Amino acid sequence: MADDNDAAAAQPLLGRIEDGGRQRAVARRRRVILATFVTGLVLLTAFTAAGILFAKRNANKRGRGKPNVILMISDGFGPASETLARNYYQYTHGVPEGHQLPLDTILVGSSRTRSSDSFVTDSAAGATAFSCGIKTYNGAIAVNPEQKPCGTVLEAAKEKGYLTGMIVTSRITHATPACFASHADSRALEDDIALHEIGNYTLGRRVDLMFGGGACFFKPNTDPFSCRSDDINAYAIAKELGWHIASSDRTLFDALDPASVSLPLLNLFANDHMSYEIDRDNAVQPSLKEMTVKALDILTLSERHSKGFFLMIEGSRIDMAAHNNDPAAHVREVLAYNEAIDAVKDFIDRNPETVLISVSDHETGGLSVGLQLDPHAYPDYFWNPEALVNVQRSTEIVAPEITNFTGPPSARTAFVRDIVFPQWLAIADATDAEIAAVALPGAPYEDVIAALGTALSRRAGLGWSTHGHSAVDVNLYAYGRNAHELRGNHENTDIGKFIVRQMGLDLEPVTAQLNRDPPNKDMRAESGRGKRGAFQVEHYPHPSLGSRAVSSL
Amino acid sequence: MADDNDAAAAQPLLGRIEDGGRQRAVARRRRVILATFVTGLVLLTAFTAAGILFAKRNANKRGRGKPNVILMISDGFGPASETLARNYYQYTHGVPEGHQLPLDTILVGSSRTRSSDSFVTDSAAGATAFSCGIKTYNGAIAVNPEQKPCGTVLEAAKEKGYLTGMIVTSRITHATPACFASHADSRALEDDIALHEIGNYTLGRRVDLMFGGGACFFKPNTDPFSCRSDDINAYAIAKELGWHIASSDRTLFDALDPASVSLPLLNLFANDHMSYEIDRDNAVQPSLKEMTVKALDILTLSERHSKGFFLMIEGSRIDMAAHNNDPAAHVREVLAYNEAIDAVKDFIDRNPETVLISVSDHETGGLSVGLQLDPHAYPDYFWNPEALVNVQRSTEIVAPEITNFTGPPSARTAFVRDIVFPQWLAIADATDAEIAAVALPGAPYEDVIAALGTALSRRAGLGWSTHGHSAVDVNLYAYGRNAHELRGNHENTDIGKFIVRQMGLDLEPVTAQLNRDPPNKDMRAESGRGKRGAFQVEHYPHPSLGSRAVSSL
Repeated sequence: MADDNDAAAAQPLLGRIEDGGRQRAVARRRRVILATFVTGLVLLTAFTAAGILFAKRNANKRGRGKPNVILMISDGFGPASETLARNYYQYTHGVPEGHQLPLDTILVGSSRTRSSDSFVTDSAAGATAFSCGIKTYNGAIAVNPEQKPCGTVLEAAKEKGYLTGMIVTSRITHATPACFASHADSRALEDDIALHEIGNYTLGRRVDLMFGGGACFFKPNTDPFSCRSDDINAYAIAKELGWHIASSDRTLFDALDPASVSLPLLNLFANDHMSYEIDRDNAVQPSLKEMTVKALDILTLSERHSKGFFLMIEGSRIDMAAHNNDPAAHVREVLAYNEAIDAVKDFIDRNPETVLISVSDHETGGLSVGLQLDPHAYPDYFWNPEALVNVQRSTEIVAPEITNFTGPPSARTAFVRDIVFPQWLAIADATDAEIAAVALPGAPYEDVIAALGTALSRRAGLGWSTHGHSAVDVNLYAYGRNAHELRGNHENTDIGKFIVRQMGLDLEPVTAQLNRDPPNKDMRAESGRGKRGAFQVEHYPHPSLGSRAVSSL
Repeated sequence: MADDNDAAAAQPLLGRIEDGGRQRAVARRRRVILATFVTGLVLLTAFTAAGILFAKRNANKRGRGKPNVILMISDGFGPASETLARNYYQYTHGVPEGHQLPLDTILVGSSRTRSSDSFVTDSAAGATAFSCGIKTYNGAIAVNPEQKPCGTVLEAAKEKGYLTGMIVTSRITHATPACFASHADSRALEDDIALHEIGNYTLGRRVDLMFGGGACFFKPNTDPFSCRSDDINAYAIAKELGWHIASSDRTLFDALDPASVSLPLLNLFANDHMSYEIDRDNAVQPSLKEMTVKALDILTLSERHSKGFFLMIEGSRIDMAAHNNDPAAHVREVLAYNEAIDAVKDFIDRNPETVLISVSDHETGGLSVGLQLDPHAYPDYFWNPEALVNVQRSTEIVAPEITNFTGPPSARTAFVRDIVFPQWLAIADATDAEIAAVALPGAPYEDVIAALGTALSRRAGLGWSTHGHSAVDVNLYAYGRNAHELRGNHENTDIGKFIVRQMGLDLEPVTAQLNRDPPNKDMRAESGRGKRGAFQVEHYPHPSLGSRAVSSL
């Protein structure tokens, strides 16, 4: 080293610098080559390792994985319903504020709900946005604003080799499920809807599994439990079309072995809607979660022979409890829905190529978690879950007991004062005015059920603005494959479009086929036809209010 | 090739296989080496290109970029308010359903709002969750449930070398801004809050810029426009502490040159709250957006000498319009807030290391976008934006005109019938009952303002459940650096914790200092002290209702 330095010292200055520069350049080049080699080596190792991991993970995923779509619809569930249920759960379980419900863990955004003819949608237009990806008018069952049928994601999925299923707690012919597997210019046409759903229409059978209520629309009007206007036996037609009609017996449902069950499978547990969770007899009807788990087991075993599945699951009666402004029934429906969500999340953890979407069609009731009790006194900042804890029955079960009461007025009053309020609704301090309003002889069902809902809601400190729907954006939840695509604020039609992308569907040929051979000969002419079902909207007259009409102040 | 094959054919079977195997192994090894080389080369190229892009992007970002945090608080704005405002905007601008408001484009999740002592929070506990990252009781101004002060993100940011600012449309001493730069066991202590905010407390000055209303708390009670209970001249103290007191003159505000302005800067445009957007005289007061743009210009120029800035911007009066159940004032506040959001989004596009968080402390009014007008008639699915379009004044401006009316009852009725309803509220069809209720001599302000809000809301088809707050989760919006961390459903305290992480703050030493030397000698003893401000809650008595009390049915 000393020699080198000396030699360098003997050289002229410029040469020394040049030489030093050359030496440094050579050294630099060597370092660059070395660095390149090392970097390359490191990258190669990392690349290989990543490749191995990727292949392994993919093998895990693809072992069972098919691009299943599970669309869960919480009918009539607005943002306030989730807060209400979470507060209630935290209160009744003594857990702190950080405790989330299953839905809370998968919130990705919100869905805008307006229909083609109103800022406030109904369930039919709302579900058509999900099923066809289009805006249409309130009341439309998978038809466009010109009343022409539109192909649905369920129909297109079946076309493409997927299995398809629907689980609801309402009648299976109700607006939401109807929009996936039938076409009608009015939601009231449940006679037709039942026939479409089993495959007795243009496209033939498109559904593989149906769980829910609404057996009455499958029975001819010669049957005392029928709600059809005609003598068509839809159950018999279903059998001809290959359906396995499972028993409505709960024990037999439990015993159904997913490995040996055959599709298509129709299993209706109630003549009308299934029971509210608060009224449900566990020995008679399964819960939404139980139906969901059974269906997933069946579809997972059956899907070996298919491309995967599309499953629509509706918490149908969240909406109906809100129509009745019944907070005790409503909160239990929301919690039961969250339990079903939890089961589906578990499924996706085991089947990561599946995606779960959970969304509402609209809010119902104008629910707010807060109420001013006295118009002249500033309200406390407070609501009281305790008021809902010991309620035994939905107001929908209670109200007919009162309107059908046959005794004298004094006995009716005593019944309301001694049984209805304290025992069934856990209201120990009903006022004379409350008792009188409910016990009034001849009071219509709508008035009685409204008064019962008001009594419960006031004690809980909850407000409702309507027995109908409201326009507020609804929460959008998603989990699993490509769930990130649903982040943010979306139009409800984006849900339908996402499902199309996710499953690689094409709705156009389905729409074309439906329009070449319309499911109903003259869809327009059939509007309003059919015996009206008992769905909530029908409990009330529909005054056609002008935009400025203020009929009662 | 033929020769090779022939030679191979001459060898014994085993040898041929071995030989063929060796040849194939050699070829395979060559292919592997080639593949490795090519892969390495590709990776190296990709790596270099990525590195160049990364360095370039970082240079762009770091050119101006500092980790600024802009926290926008939409006080009393629940999910329904955004739908209301979007529907209204779409209706009045004739744009289709896909048209989003600025907030809609940056929705990331929701915030849970319960306070330490109620499911329904007030603004003080709500803002303390954001400022200190803790749950506390309703009414607490940056103190914990034991009424000990907690260090705030604004205080800690200043400590760390950031600039700090607050922009509000309420009094600057109102609960929300108070929770960032003062400490009091009751939100009513606005006398103290004003002094803390200018730096007359334990920590010294922590705020660099304040725009808003509330000059009355900076004037001694010898001033006719004071609302202080004492003779302290907070403006004079502010000057001693180095504050530049800018003129409230709007023209001078416009002329303020961000390049030459000096911090700290105090600019209060109104004695009490600033005007509602619907009442705002553009020649007198700037909009929230205008204050925001000016503040960002000033802070961006000044931040050259700092680490960056923390800016809290509150759309304060969204809440107050909701307290009044005044939908016309409310919707315009929400739209004005969205305009400010738009300006901040623009700023972030130019300063991508900034993050914007927009969140509400709570919902106010139990607003629902849908209303049943007749309790005995099923409601239409509908709401009517048109009813809000031509409204000229907030009910808060209108009500005192009525209660202060000095003429005889007949003149009062004529005034309400001919001026108030048709001209100011655009209600051409007021009923006799509506007119009588509003014109009733001696009717208290609260009853008059409630009746005016009801008249407007019924015509619009909007519902309110309370003049107070509700518990519903509020929307969470974020844009810019690390905004993705706020995706999903969060506790409101997570917002405070996010700001701490984002700016690298430490609240503990601030809390420790505040507790060594409490800002108020005996905070507990001072509770309720001070002349009450005119804040909305004070318009009403506060009956302490028991959990089951139903005072009026």
